[in-house]
Order: sequence, then structure tokens, then C-alpha cells
Amino acid sequence: MQFADRLNNVETSAIRELFKLLGKPGIISFAGGFPDSAMFDVEGIREASALALSKEPGAALQYGATEGYNPLREQLALFMATKGVKNISPEGLIVTTGSQQALDLVAKTLLNPDDIALVEAPTFLATIQCFRLYGPKVLGVPIDAHGVQVDKLEAMIQQHKPKLVYIIPTFGNPSGALLTKERRLKYKTIVIEDDPYGDLYFGEAPPPSMLALSDQVPGSRDWLVHCGSLSKVLSPGLRVGWMVAPPDLLARATMCKQFSDAHTSTFAQATAAQYLLSGRMPATLNKVRSVYAERAQAMDQALQRELGDALAYTAPQGGLFFWANLTGTNGAVKDGNAFAKSAIEKGVAFVPGAPFFANDPDLSSIRLSFATADLAKIEEGITRLGQALKA
Amino acid sequence: MQFADRLNNVETSAIRELFKLLGKPGIISFAGGFPDSAMFDVEGIREASALALSKEPGAALQYGATEGYNPLREQLALFMATKGVKNISPEGLIVTTGSQQALDLVAKTLLNPDDIALVEAPTFLATIQCFRLYGPKVLGVPIDAHGVQVDKLEAMIQQHKPKLVYIIPTFGNPSGALLTKERRLKYKTIVIEDDPYGDLYFGEAPPPSMLALSDQVPGSRDWLVHCGSLSKVLSPGLRVGWMVAPPDLLARATMCKQFSDAHTSTFAQATAAQYLLSGRMPATLNKVRSVYAERAQAMDQALQRELGDALAYTAPQGGLFFWANLTGTNGAVKDGNAFAKSAIEKGVAFVPGAPFFANDPDLSSIRLSFATADLAKIEEGITRLGQALKA
Repeated sequence: MQFADRLNNVETSAIRELFKLLGKPGIISFAGGFPDSAMFDVEGIREASALALSKEPGAALQYGATEGYNPLREQLALFMATKGVKNISPEGLIVTTGSQQALDLVAKTLLNPDDIALVEAPTFLATIQCFRLYGPKVLGVPIDAHGVQVDKLEAMIQQHKPKLVYIIPTFGNPSGALLTKERRLKYKTIVIEDDPYGDLYFGEAPPPSMLALSDQVPGSRDWLVHCGSLSKVLSPGLRVGWMVAPPDLLARATMCKQFSDAHTSTFAQATAAQYLLSGRMPATLNKVRSVYAERAQAMDQALQRELGDALAYTAPQGGLFFWANLTGTNGAVKDGNAFAKSAIEKGVAFVPGAPFFANDPDLSSIRLSFATADLAKIEEGITRLGQALKA
Repeated sequence: MQFADRLNNVETSAIRELFKLLGKPGIISFAGGFPDSAMFDVEGIREASALALSKEPGAALQYGATEGYNPLREQLALFMATKGVKNISPEGLIVTTGSQQALDLVAKTLLNPDDIALVEAPTFLATIQCFRLYGPKVLGVPIDAHGVQVDKLEAMIQQHKPKLVYIIPTFGNPSGALLTKERRLKYKTIVIEDDPYGDLYFGEAPPPSMLALSDQVPGSRDWLVHCGSLSKVLSPGLRVGWMVAPPDLLARATMCKQFSDAHTSTFAQATAAQYLLSGRMPATLNKVRSVYAERAQAMDQALQRELGDALAYTAPQGGLFFWANLTGTNGAVKDGNAFAKSAIEKGVAFVPGAPFFANDPDLSSIRLSFATADLAKIEEGITRLGQALKA
């Protein structure tokens, strides 16, 4: 069977191979990108779902508009308003099947095979592959602890004239600086702000999203795409995300969505709408923030104690991940892939960082999730990681 | 903003424009492609959803495997077995976000811009547009009352060497003849069998699906893709479809799905799994079959009475639609589009047939759905249609 040429641009993920080893009994895993199931507000979702089916069974179970279920679009606009986003009407967003679909629709709508897309290095693995399926060259822009390096981004925009720039400005890669400098306007490049983690902060709230800041930069909304998601804060299983974009882009993305999946599950959308309407979201957010904050702090302390200066990182102020580099000090391992293998031997799993780069991977990088292990498992898992380092 | 070239291949649907007129008060609509919401087993779905959340809240609300939620894959394999499909294991299918997504994934996996795809003329409108977004030329193969005209299909396969052939062999376009003649094997062309309506028969069950028949033709499964859906029989709002395909195609479609929406809503999947497990499906199927059969019969009688030989059609034995041609007898209208406009004036809506053709549209064709109007509305609506004809 002969497959489409576009598949040649995508490799099977190295991470997938690693995940196969996770079935080993007793493994403590820091490898996933999942939120903790124990945090799901099952009772609240059950009530919301029952309400959706009793109040509007026809709408919840019938075909719906491709743009999304209107009561949910209204709730999402209100939800964004609580986060400083003004001037968002329900018509200014479409509901997507997770924010992964928003990325796919933007790529399908915009990218030609001869285009260039800039992403952070590192970035969300599935974005790189999602974009590549539409043929463009995907290039990474270096980041540091404060997010994408704006001077390098500017130079790469000038050099490569990219069709779009994709960034996750808030956890793991926090930087709100970009938009305020009006660089997007200058280059008329579409900027995609992916914001699945912005609600998961541990202390003070992060800088406002680029979407929220766009009010301060006249015209910037014409070039800004914002992707939101309930996956990390409420439930990934609902597959409810959304996308804000300029009207002409939104209309074309809606057309592409019509032929991708017709619409997002109205059953899930009506449930999400009832949940947001129930007023339980603030308490849910407070809970996940405090639990993840505690776990992040425990991992930070354990890493310092067990790995010391063999690992360099900036402790995250939100999100689900530590991003760290093996320093190779005192002859210790410096390769993330090799370290992941010896860690599995010791009963702890994480993912090496290399696959998160579109090009020129940093082989010394690793990613550790603190989201799904409790405090005791974090202690034990990082102790094993220390043993793997010494082995 | 400059959009991707692939969007140039797709037009905004003429039907969409027509649908805007449906808001007019008092309109009786035969225009939709929806099942009747009144037929949804709301109580059964509510119970299934509550069970899914109490029995396995983690799985129902967490990220899931891209291939689908295993208990649902098991239930779908059993469901297909009741319809004569043997040798289907849960691993032989993936769950898709409606069968629309299955079509999108097959197209993404297989179609290059220089490929040719054959479809029936007429066929499902969204398939034509979905395929075109990947660049191929889409050509229609004529059908008659017994489905696709096999001799013409054979000639077109020889002439065009298509990458794939897409057919809906069971309602509206019933023909089980194709597979038994082993033509697919001869030409090594992928055949996509879309089967959303096969369960909606009015009298005797239709011929077995091509998937069921494939057991009789050794090797044929290597070239057969089968798309199923719960949308027409249970609920479109769940967005639960599935796809059976050869292993290498299924693996690549799964990879494409990973970057399209990660996975189908596990909440909807777990609900569907519990519903199938509950044993309510056979009664649900009996109910929809008998209600739609009654409506189809009423529409048939009313059409004969009110439009007589101005309209030529073969009464359907299942599905949701009458497909008919204006004969223009006695100087009556012969153009489906013009007739749709004068019908709206008289307070009844349907869709003209032309948009359902990939090329060379039959302008005299129209499509009437009997699914969502009750018997009184069907009587009144077809009476109005008769008045529109005379006007």
C-alpha cells in the first residue's frame, strides 16, 4: 500500500518506545503529560452531565454547529473574562476537540509545504509532528528560563519569514514579554499562543496571556491565535478545547473542522457548559494548584538532595513539569536518553528531552512530571533517580 | 492573511446558504441529514453515562489511547459480529470522532495532490470536500437505483488508476454486488465502505456489508476500509464512529489521529461502551427502524399523490432519504435549485441534489429527508411541495 507523501515528514516518536517499558511492575513514572485522575471533580461532572441530559437532551445528543454549542461558547467567553481577557464574545471563539485539534486546524488552514513554522526549542512534541504533516519546515527558537529568547526569535523571523510562530508562553516556558514589544505587528507573522497550563500557577498568577495583553497593542488581535483547554484543569477525557482567532481565519478553520469531525461531542460540550455554569470551577482550580504546588516543591527538594549539581534547572512556578539539563559533573551521565534507560532499570521513568526539539536537539535535557505521583512516590522515585545517576 | 493553497480546492456549500432560510417560521423541513432527536434513548444514555462515571471515573475523564477505549472497542467488535462480520478483533478497529473523522484520517493517510479518488455520483457532500482538502481530483461514478454502476466503475478504475474508491453501498445507494466479483483485488485499489445507515432497514435486512462479505474473497481485507458510526442509530452528539482497515493503514491513521485530536472523548466512549453493554441497542434499533419505515411510507404515498409523474424515484428500503429526479413533465420545473426556492416560498424545505456530485451535477435531482418530520408534517409538507410544483 502506498501512503501519502506527507507521512514521510513524521517519525514515530522515540517516547512511544519508552512508554512501552512503563508496564514493568513497580515503576514510578514521571514520564506522562497527564494531570492526576484523583484530582478530577467526578461528582461535579456527573451532576453537570445529568443536568445536560435532563435540561436539553435533544441538544446534548444531536448534531451541533461546527463552531460549537452556544451555551458552552458563552461560558468559555466568561471563563476567559475572569482571566483578564476582554472583548471576547462567544462568536469570537470556536470549540475544538481538545486544543490538539485547534493546532491541527490552524496548520491545515495556513501551512503550505514550502512554508516555515517557528516553534520554541523545546516545545510540545505533538505540535511539531502535527505541523509537519502539512509539509512545512519546522524550526526551533532557543528558550531560556524566562521563555523564548526574543532577540533570537526576531532574528529568525527576519531570516526565515515564517508563516507562523507557535509558543507556549506560560509554564513550562514562561515569558509575557513578547507581545508588549509589538514585534508581531512589525513582522505581520501569525502568533499562536497555546495556553493549556496558564491556570496551573503555584504562587502569584503569571503575567496576563498574550490574548489578554493584546488590548494594549492596537491591531495585534489580527495576528493572534489563542488556544485554550479544559484538559489540564478539569478533564482531558471531555476533549474540550477552544480557539480564538481573527474572523477570517476562524471561518476557514471552522470549514476545515466541518470536514475533520463535523463538530466536537455535543454531549461533552453540554456537560462542560453545565459544569462551568455550576460555579465549581474556582474551587477545582484552587485544589489542583495547591496539590501540584506541593508536589513540585517536594520534587525540587528531592532533586537537590539526590542529584545536586548533576542536574541544572529552574524550578517551575506552575504547570506539570520540571525541565532540566544533565550537567555531566564529576563524570556523571550527560545523555538524557542513556539516563532514561538506566533510570528504568532502577524503577523510575521520565522522558528524555531530545524529541521535544524540532531540530538540533539538546541531548542533555530531560523532562520530569510531578503531576501524577504522590509525595511518597516523588521521594522514592527521585531517590531511585539518584541511584541511577551513581550507577 | 494568506491561507494554505489546499483551501482553494473547497467551495462554501450551496446548501449552507439554503439552510439560512430554514429559520423562517412555520417551515416544514425535509432538508436535514439528522436523525430525529425524539428517537434518542435519553434514559439509556443517562444510565450509561452515570455507570461510566461511577465504575471507571479515571478512565472516563482521563487521556486515553489514540486507538480508542478498549472496552468500547470490544463492544463495537461484538456489535459488528451481530451483523455478520466475523474475524474482527477489538485491535482490528480504531474509534474515531464520528465517521467523518475516519474519512479525514483515510484521506490524510493516503491521498497525494496528484491522486484521483472515485466516489459515487451523487455521494455524501462532506466526503467530497474532505478529500479535496488533501488535493486529489475527485471524480464521480454514476449510480442507479441499485447502487454504483459496476461496469462504469470498472472502466473508470482502468482509465484513472484511482488511489481509492469511496462508496456507501447500503442506503441510499444499495449494492452488495461489487465485492463478490473480486474486482477490488484485481485492481488493487483501496475501497472505503462507509456504512452509517446499514442498520436502518425497513423490511428485510440488506445484503451483508462488504466487510462481512470479505470473508468470501481471500485477500480482500487487505484493500478494504470500513467506517461505522453510532450517529444515526444512537446519538450523533456522542461523536463515536469507528474504522476497520488493514493493519499498516490502521497504524498510520492512528498516528494521524494522534496529531488531529489525540483521541476521541473518553467520556463519550465510556458512555457508549456502557450503553452497548446494557443490552438496550436491539430495542433502540427496532424502534428507529419502525418509525422511519412508517415515515418513509407516508412520504412515498404523499409524493405519488401530490407530485405524480413530475417526480421519478425508487422508494428507499432504509436510511433517511428519498433521492428523486424532477422529470419536467407537462412543463413543470426541472431544476432542483429553482424548485427548492419556490418550495421555501410555500413553506417547505429540501436540498437540491447538485452539490452531492463531485463533477457533472444532475441539476434535476433533489434529496428529501423523512427522518425528522412526523406523519402530519409529512402530509402537510408534501402537499405544499405539490403546490410549489404547480406554482
